[in-house]
Amino acid sequence: MNFLELDTLRQLFERSLDQQTRYHLTPPRLIEAMRYSLKNGGKRLRPVMLLAVLAIQSEDLVKCGLKTAIALEYIHTYSLIHDDLPAMDNDDLRRGQATNHKRFGEGLAILAGDALLTDAFQFLVSDDLLDDRTKLALIDQLSQASGSWGMVAGQVGDIEAEQTPVDYQGLKQIHDQKTGALFRFALEAGAIIGGADASTCQALRQFGRHFGLAYQIHNDLMDVLGSQEVTGKVTQADQALTKSTYPSLLGLQGAKDALAVEVSAASQILENLAKESGRPYQILGGILDYLTLPSAK
Amino acid sequence: MNFLELDTLRQLFERSLDQQTRYHLTPPRLIEAMRYSLKNGGKRLRPVMLLAVLAIQSEDLVKCGLKTAIALEYIHTYSLIHDDLPAMDNDDLRRGQATNHKRFGEGLAILAGDALLTDAFQFLVSDDLLDDRTKLALIDQLSQASGSWGMVAGQVGDIEAEQTPVDYQGLKQIHDQKTGALFRFALEAGAIIGGADASTCQALRQFGRHFGLAYQIHNDLMDVLGSQEVTGKVTQADQALTKSTYPSLLGLQGAKDALAVEVSAASQILENLAKESGRPYQILGGILDYLTLPSAK
Repeated sequence: MNFLELDTLRQLFERSLDQQTRYHLTPPRLIEAMRYSLKNGGKRLRPVMLLAVLAIQSEDLVKCGLKTAIALEYIHTYSLIHDDLPAMDNDDLRRGQATNHKRFGEGLAILAGDALLTDAFQFLVSDDLLDDRTKLALIDQLSQASGSWGMVAGQVGDIEAEQTPVDYQGLKQIHDQKTGALFRFALEAGAIIGGADASTCQALRQFGRHFGLAYQIHNDLMDVLGSQEVTGKVTQADQALTKSTYPSLLGLQGAKDALAVEVSAASQILENLAKESGRPYQILGGILDYLTLPSAK
Repeated sequence: MNFLELDTLRQLFERSLDQQTRYHLTPPRLIEAMRYSLKNGGKRLRPVMLLAVLAIQSEDLVKCGLKTAIALEYIHTYSLIHDDLPAMDNDDLRRGQATNHKRFGEGLAILAGDALLTDAFQFLVSDDLLDDRTKLALIDQLSQASGSWGMVAGQVGDIEAEQTPVDYQGLKQIHDQKTGALFRFALEAGAIIGGADASTCQALRQFGRHFGLAYQIHNDLMDVLGSQEVTGKVTQADQALTKSTYPSLLGLQGAKDALAVEVSAASQILENLAKESGRPYQILGGILDYLTLPSAK
């Protein structure tokens, strides 16, 4: 196996996830709802990023990141289930399939999200491959990244922005918390588990910041440019809510330019890291391929 | 201050909670929603239990339990907010006040719950008064008690029981997870932080099991016997949903008898603990006073 290929890491993650979600004491309907969203064809960007940072440092480290990668995907998945609820974005489809509440009902969808969020911490605390210090550092970072001044804060900003449109800086701040915080955790977790030095850590966080912003601009652009087949959800839903988006604030070309700037800044960081360390940090750049736009019709 | 009085412990907890919920980076509306439910006049049974177990072992230990007590109350509070949602119990009132979603809207209520749940783990991991081993043991136990085979499993059982009525054993099993798991954690956390021996730990868990069951029987009985003024919510809501309850399964007198049996078993455990250890375990018995029923009219 070549751990320096992102696809290999993704497959490794999928296998590990399948092994780890065989619950015995969980009500069958609950685990079905949890698995439904966990196995909904996600791109696994966050787990792959985390495992890639480890593989770049040493291929032996990859296995030490698997449970943290699962915890991270649990948190990401819970956030999607709750975001899709009628009281939030009210989405019927995600990646072309019925959203969790459409399939299992709202009550169970809320509870499946709650269970995924809680179980994420159980994965971290019960990881036998990590020492106590590392586990606590990961729990600390993950709870900050996803709690009331991380991802949840960003989601609150997002629903408030539906009522009171925000400017470009405001929008960046919301997405930095809502989406960026978990991407940064993915990279930081790789650095923590691998014992990377402070300047590498800092550079990876910076990469995460650019990637997170690029990811969101790309997402907004796909809502305008993409067809339902491509994004797997009803497009232009955000506009219908008269919500600030990058294209609405910067114009279509302005948003495309902003995306290019962020992608290029992210690539540059990886190039510098590779040069300084002599390690293949450029493989992380493969993750930027997800941010390409459909060619003009 | 006499830490061997439950009221003193409750006041100490309230002060600590007020100090610890001054957030700087959290959106004001989110922290308002979180505080609204945190400060909704709850009885603080779980934090008081935890602190009492510590006080019984040594008064110096009480301060070491404050952050864990807050984490525990955060988890309990999130579960109430989510339970009250329209998709779950659909309650408009809790303790005589508007439920969180009635006051802040469903979207923010869901997010306030998510933030409380996540921040609970941040409280545990950032507690400077505990060593690494203790923190990890607490995070382990709390995530098990509240996750997909603990509290959330119980809540799923509870909503499934609305469709398919369960028998007495089934009902006990649901409440053992839904309510009992957090009570047991309160007692166990006191034992973990205080370094209690295995047999004390076991006895405290047993006390928690009887208390949890008694608490739920009392709750069901109050729905039948209590007035809205006493319970602070619209009574007989459970019956309207044709749900199995202790009175519906055992009859009114049968449920009262079952309550008395559990309370007496709980008291007996404390008496034995006090006798064996020479420590004032009977002060925990004060918590059983909450389970008295209104006198017959």
